[in-house]
Amino acid sequence: MKLRGNASSEQRETGRVEAFSDGVFAIAITLLVLQFQVPPVDQIDDRRALRDALLHLWPSFVAFLTSFIAILIMWMNHHGVFRLVRQVNGPFLVANGFLLLTVSFVPFPTAVLANHARGPSSTIAAAFYCGTYVLVSIGYNALWSTATRGRLLKPGVSESHVRKIRHAYLVGFLVYVAAAALALWNAHAGLALSTALWLLWGVLDYSDEKTPEIPRT
Amino acid sequence: MKLRGNASSEQRETGRVEAFSDGVFAIAITLLVLQFQVPPVDQIDDRRALRDALLHLWPSFVAFLTSFIAILIMWMNHHGVFRLVRQVNGPFLVANGFLLLTVSFVPFPTAVLANHARGPSSTIAAAFYCGTYVLVSIGYNALWSTATRGRLLKPGVSESHVRKIRHAYLVGFLVYVAAAALALWNAHAGLALSTALWLLWGVLDYSDEKTPEIPRT
Amino acid sequence: MKLRGNASSEQRETGRVEAFSDGVFAIAITLLVLQFQVPPVDQIDDRRALRDALLHLWPSFVAFLTSFIAILIMWMNHHGVFRLVRQVNGPFLVANGFLLLTVSFVPFPTAVLANHARGPSSTIAAAFYCGTYVLVSIGYNALWSTATRGRLLKPGVSESHVRKIRHAYLVGFLVYVAAAALALWNAHAGLALSTALWLLWGVLDYSDEKTPEIPRT
Amino acid sequence: MKLRGNASSEQRETGRVEAFSDGVFAIAITLLVLQFQVPPVDQIDDRRALRDALLHLWPSFVAFLTSFIAILIMWMNHHGVFRLVRQVNGPFLVANGFLLLTVSFVPFPTAVLANHARGPSSTIAAAFYCGTYVLVSIGYNALWSTATRGRLLKPGVSESHVRKIRHAYLVGFLVYVAAAALALWNAHAGLALSTALWLLWGVLDYSDEKTPEIPRT
Repeated sequence: MKLRGNASSEQRETGRVEAFSDGVFAIAITLLVLQFQVPPVDQIDDRRALRDALLHLWPSFVAFLTSFIAILIMWMNHHGVFRLVRQVNGPFLVANGFLLLTVSFVPFPTAVLANHARGPSSTIAAAFYCGTYVLVSIGYNALWSTATRGRLLKPGVSESHVRKIRHAYLVGFLVYVAAAALALWNAHAGLALSTALWLLWGVLDYSDEKTPEIPRT
Repeated sequence: MKLRGNASSEQRETGRVEAFSDGVFAIAITLLVLQFQVPPVDQIDDRRALRDALLHLWPSFVAFLTSFIAILIMWMNHHGVFRLVRQVNGPFLVANGFLLLTVSFVPFPTAVLANHARGPSSTIAAAFYCGTYVLVSIGYNALWSTATRGRLLKPGVSESHVRKIRHAYLVGFLVYVAAAALALWNAHAGLALSTALWLLWGVLDYSDEKTPEIPRT
Repeated sequence: MKLRGNASSEQRETGRVEAFSDGVFAIAITLLVLQFQVPPVDQIDDRRALRDALLHLWPSFVAFLTSFIAILIMWMNHHGVFRLVRQVNGPFLVANGFLLLTVSFVPFPTAVLANHARGPSSTIAAAFYCGTYVLVSIGYNALWSTATRGRLLKPGVSESHVRKIRHAYLVGFLVYVAAAALALWNAHAGLALSTALWLLWGVLDYSDEKTPEIPRT
Repeated sequence: MKLRGNASSEQRETGRVEAFSDGVFAIAITLLVLQFQVPPVDQIDDRRALRDALLHLWPSFVAFLTSFIAILIMWMNHHGVFRLVRQVNGPFLVANGFLLLTVSFVPFPTAVLANHARGPSSTIAAAFYCGTYVLVSIGYNALWSTATRGRLLKPGVSESHVRKIRHAYLVGFLVYVAAAALALWNAHAGLALSTALWLLWGVLDYSDEKTPEIPRT
């Protein structure tokens, strides 16, 4: 679908795509809670049984916490990209659509990990979980690549800034691949490496120090 | 419910209907993930079992991917229509409501297809899935028909442009009917034909080449 | 929680409450699809079995359709009220919160009706379903009552207009009570009476014929 | 992720964080209905059976009502904080993220309470439910603490006003801790104390009486 327009409608386009994306992020992050399963009433006889059943859900709590933080960080990075983008085009929309696809998928590997975090199958569950972030990472690389190739960025963004973000996304991709491979061998190690990337995303600075004030209009 | 108003409030009306519709699209697309079922813990003994169980879910992955792209394309086309619309009236709201009904229904045939993609019942599942898109297509035809008959379009939209979109929607409807019928005979063929329509929606150009700059007021 | 403010922030208040309410309406209407249950794979042997299983779901289709239209109409009427409202106060927010509570509850009686529409328990399911609309109706009556008593309406709204809407809401409440009582005796009759009220909401005109142009500021 | 910007983009930042948060609140409050379980068809023989089964769900109704009101009050208080905030920074975003985490978690303890409100395990369910509000309360304390320490408040907010809200949040935290502990001994008493806090949140006044008109821009 081709959508052409003048400067004002370009702003609207970008805003509407961002609002739709925000909606998907907000819904995906809130659906994470649905993976929790209430301990069945007919198997709980007394206080201790319910307490133990809730404690037994610790992998669900960890997976919920991890995925919530991950999606929140993804949302902030998505927002960081859109702050630098002036308009959208077809390839950028496709890349953004792929990214949303991977984000909305996160609740499923989260539930798999929560249910299979114990026992011999945990390595597969952890690799499946980390592998999802490989796909998410491909989405971010594609988003940034289409934004820069299509000359969609705002005028003030410097070439060195573009490179910095591209490198960060490439490093992220490689580390997620390594984490998924590592998880096949040791679930905890893979998950730890995958989680460690939060630091990278946390310090990634989307404001260009050479152009401290990028206008939005 | 009748809602009259001046030009300014008409803009608001259109914007609010569009925002509500966007919400339904975003929620429906994110609910697709709920069709995935975590492999039951008590049936998974080792690594291989979980790996095989996840691989066995391939119809779910395909159905998730297909429906996600389909809803995303629907959303973009919905947006394309609203870009050309100046105001709303009763019949247009009814058509839009019917369209949202069909969009919000998509997760169910998706889940049916994911669970019944194998075995002798796959033709019914595929026809049910393709049949849903027949309903969606009726929604788009009704939306465009009410928009043009009620003179809701912006001033700059040419008659030839109106016809082009009407023809595209009519072709879409006929192909979806053919795909649903074909799926009863061969599930894969019907699904392939239905998916091929993405090309049509992808190239459908909502900007009028005769009036390249339609103001949004 | 008390929120005071000047005219500009009052407009924002109203807008934010309306946006939050719109979100709840959009989510509740899209969650309706979750009541559909995929026919279990292990009970479906051939084409006919899946076809029959889907046809057997007709109460779910009817309940989905009915509740979707009902929530859509509720949303349009909610919007109609907010078009006439200039600002919000505490009692109005409480009434609006109660209304959202009842709207977000609708998916449950819908699922009960879909599952128990056949057999001797259908009267209870239908009465439970109609009874939910009694609560919704109380919400609308409270919303309009707090809006008029708190002098929250825009300057141009005439007294006769206020009375007209109050009477429509009161009639709605009484008919829903009658429908719920009737459903206990005959499920179909109760549901039919409840559905017939769509006509009332469809013709209810929120624009004041004496003040055709109510400014939105 | 660092996001710098001028005054205008600061307003946008705040607005976007608030819109995302509103989305999470609206989704979490609407997901509460999913905890209701339809009485199984094969166990219902006649009218009385369905009526009794629905009446037997009373803990679900109470839990739904309680959590709905709680999230609605949280949303209003969240809004109250954002009315006083001029801009956001990193720690504030982390505090807000933690708060959203706890809000989106509420549907799970609600479902646990609904299912285990009867019998000897009710104290654990009630303590788990009240304990969730302890976490929510920590989120509000952190939100206000980061807002005041980071000098994110609007110019007109007086020091006494800041203290008043801080004290209210601290009292809230202590009472929720007491309620969780009390619930371990008596489920009803703990839940009653927790619910009594609605009064505090209901009377908490976010408008500063010394500066009655806080500008929003």
